[in-house]
Amino acid sequence: MTEQFSKGLEGVVVAESELSDINGETGELVYRGYDIEDLATGASYEEVLYLLWNGRLPARDELAEFSNGMAGEFAVDEAVLDSLRVLADADERPMAALRTGVSMLSMTDPDADARPRDEAAARRKGRRILAQIPTLLAAYDRLRRGEEPVEPDESLSYAGNFLYMLTGDEPGEVAEETFDMALSLHADHGLNASTFTTVVIASTFADVYSSVTGGIGALAGPLHGGANQDVMEALFDLDEREITAREWVEEMVDRGSRVPGWGHRVYSVTDPRAAILRSKLEDLAAASGETKWLNYTTSITEYLTEEQRLPEKGIAPNVDFYSGSVYHQLGIPVDMYTPIFAMARTGGWVAHILEYQTNNRLIRPRGRYVGPEDEAFVPLENR
Amino acid sequence: MTEQFSKGLEGVVVAESELSDINGETGELVYRGYDIEDLATGASYEEVLYLLWNGRLPARDELAEFSNGMAGEFAVDEAVLDSLRVLADADERPMAALRTGVSMLSMTDPDADARPRDEAAARRKGRRILAQIPTLLAAYDRLRRGEEPVEPDESLSYAGNFLYMLTGDEPGEVAEETFDMALSLHADHGLNASTFTTVVIASTFADVYSSVTGGIGALAGPLHGGANQDVMEALFDLDEREITAREWVEEMVDRGSRVPGWGHRVYSVTDPRAAILRSKLEDLAAASGETKWLNYTTSITEYLTEEQRLPEKGIAPNVDFYSGSVYHQLGIPVDMYTPIFAMARTGGWVAHILEYQTNNRLIRPRGRYVGPEDEAFVPLENR
Repeated sequence: MTEQFSKGLEGVVVAESELSDINGETGELVYRGYDIEDLATGASYEEVLYLLWNGRLPARDELAEFSNGMAGEFAVDEAVLDSLRVLADADERPMAALRTGVSMLSMTDPDADARPRDEAAARRKGRRILAQIPTLLAAYDRLRRGEEPVEPDESLSYAGNFLYMLTGDEPGEVAEETFDMALSLHADHGLNASTFTTVVIASTFADVYSSVTGGIGALAGPLHGGANQDVMEALFDLDEREITAREWVEEMVDRGSRVPGWGHRVYSVTDPRAAILRSKLEDLAAASGETKWLNYTTSITEYLTEEQRLPEKGIAPNVDFYSGSVYHQLGIPVDMYTPIFAMARTGGWVAHILEYQTNNRLIRPRGRYVGPEDEAFVPLENR
Repeated sequence: MTEQFSKGLEGVVVAESELSDINGETGELVYRGYDIEDLATGASYEEVLYLLWNGRLPARDELAEFSNGMAGEFAVDEAVLDSLRVLADADERPMAALRTGVSMLSMTDPDADARPRDEAAARRKGRRILAQIPTLLAAYDRLRRGEEPVEPDESLSYAGNFLYMLTGDEPGEVAEETFDMALSLHADHGLNASTFTTVVIASTFADVYSSVTGGIGALAGPLHGGANQDVMEALFDLDEREITAREWVEEMVDRGSRVPGWGHRVYSVTDPRAAILRSKLEDLAAASGETKWLNYTTSITEYLTEEQRLPEKGIAPNVDFYSGSVYHQLGIPVDMYTPIFAMARTGGWVAHILEYQTNNRLIRPRGRYVGPEDEAFVPLENR
């Protein structure tokens, strides 16, 4: 067998998938053949989930059944919430709390004893996890602020219920629509590191809780999902300085720093998700009258795109460049951005798990051994 | 870029490593150049950990410092033990309880706020996780039996302390030695699915808790670590039947069933770890006078290896074929075999995490999109 060495697996195709397709040169992203813009603007996150999991968009009665079924599982067991209290008291980081919370949910799953290859059970587990992540996250954010969790409202949409549980108030229409769109935009994106993690775990036929817990762990990393709060922290820094956005970014470029939210391993043009979020940021700015975050991102973009100031060609804003400002205008704390990314991406993770397991092959690459050979063992007494 | 498609990544080299080398044709396994037999019989698990993490076997004072430091971190926070009680009350499976327990440990880590690239902090986190896994597991097993956890004894070895906390009694010399050897044998084995999982997660610079939690999830799968309890369950079945081991295995082969504990994706001859465990099983049988498990495995091996009865050439006993009988003779419940595998393998996981992150590249393969193209979006009202 010829050995193929590819550090980071760049260019290695590990699986065929019908879920999402990315064209980095033209800036296109599709889920099951549908353009992301059509889905983000024309369909709810629940419809996107149905599409990813079932291969087609739902009819109205199918969507109602799916959404109501999921809403009926929003509530999280009191014992799990008690453990969240312990984590909140210890000031655990939200991604770690989510990782522990999701791992713990398996204890309450009625399908816990299902056979590993029971696809229908895996599907139910996936939906339950998805239903309960918003509840876990909103409860955690409130507990660490010393407030009691707000019980889910099954009559609200997935996006609306999360904002309601987080803030205690039913969200306005623009807020709910915007958050729903952000969820759809983040739902799937090929075999990125966290999705790949969930697939590697699923390839052993470990259950969906193990896979999603692993995906959350991977997404927590600063080279992956952890990057999305960097942009907002940078914008807060800019906001506190008494210089213009142009001066601020000029300073950053001059000292050779990477500008957060610019550049992507896959896209060489503008990330299509960034363009959609930018237009939503405009809506939020218009609705609230608070335009500074929109203005900052606009000024930074103008500066960076004129006269080839970027160190490399083909660097453009990615989804993180706008998501931070959007979430901030929705009143979401910065350290919840990555957990929200996880909430949205769990939809894609579950889709990949179900898809991969229907034609499963254990994922087991090789390492190339480059260590010493034939070491003579010397017992401890003689060392 | 040429696309390379390899389902399951078979034959794809994803990283260079100095940690372990497997020769499946000759049945050899080395850790950092040392033959596994030398290490298993001549060194303690603590020495093997030191070797894997530091690149050389420790001198006596180095080993003492390392072992004492780890023993000083055996104790697990009371709040984490309280969550184990909740899991035990819900009758959570031990691997899921371990996954949740390890994930939760991060809340008590004094290095929780360390920078992601702080290698010394990652090393300390790895040692802490390793120190606390035996405590988590022994406590969990006792709690679900309605018994209180036994506090760790820092004066005991890693292996001895686990058996002590599990049973409440200090283990005999043969038991401690055997368990220590089993830990060393399972410590590392190239880039198997769980180790690869930990590396994929670590490649995002997520912290060690995220990686190890993901590894536990992968190891739980029946195609991976979950296989090691199948052998013992099969032997229990044999033990209850009124037929000989020969008749039992003949029946199994005749109906075309796979014999648990036979065959391995990497080894085409006897797994070297199996040979070592077999000799330990002989010692345990001699020490205890209970020879039936040894006799069963011997009869099965004789039957399967005479006259090419196996469906494929090159099928031989793997490590799981003997580990079950060994653990059973040590008084360990069957559903703790995979968690014990995780305990041992955490040593290798941490070694791979530290090694990969010193020359890190985010692991991001591609999927090949084979789904529909250019789907025309129809809004919900018109579906």
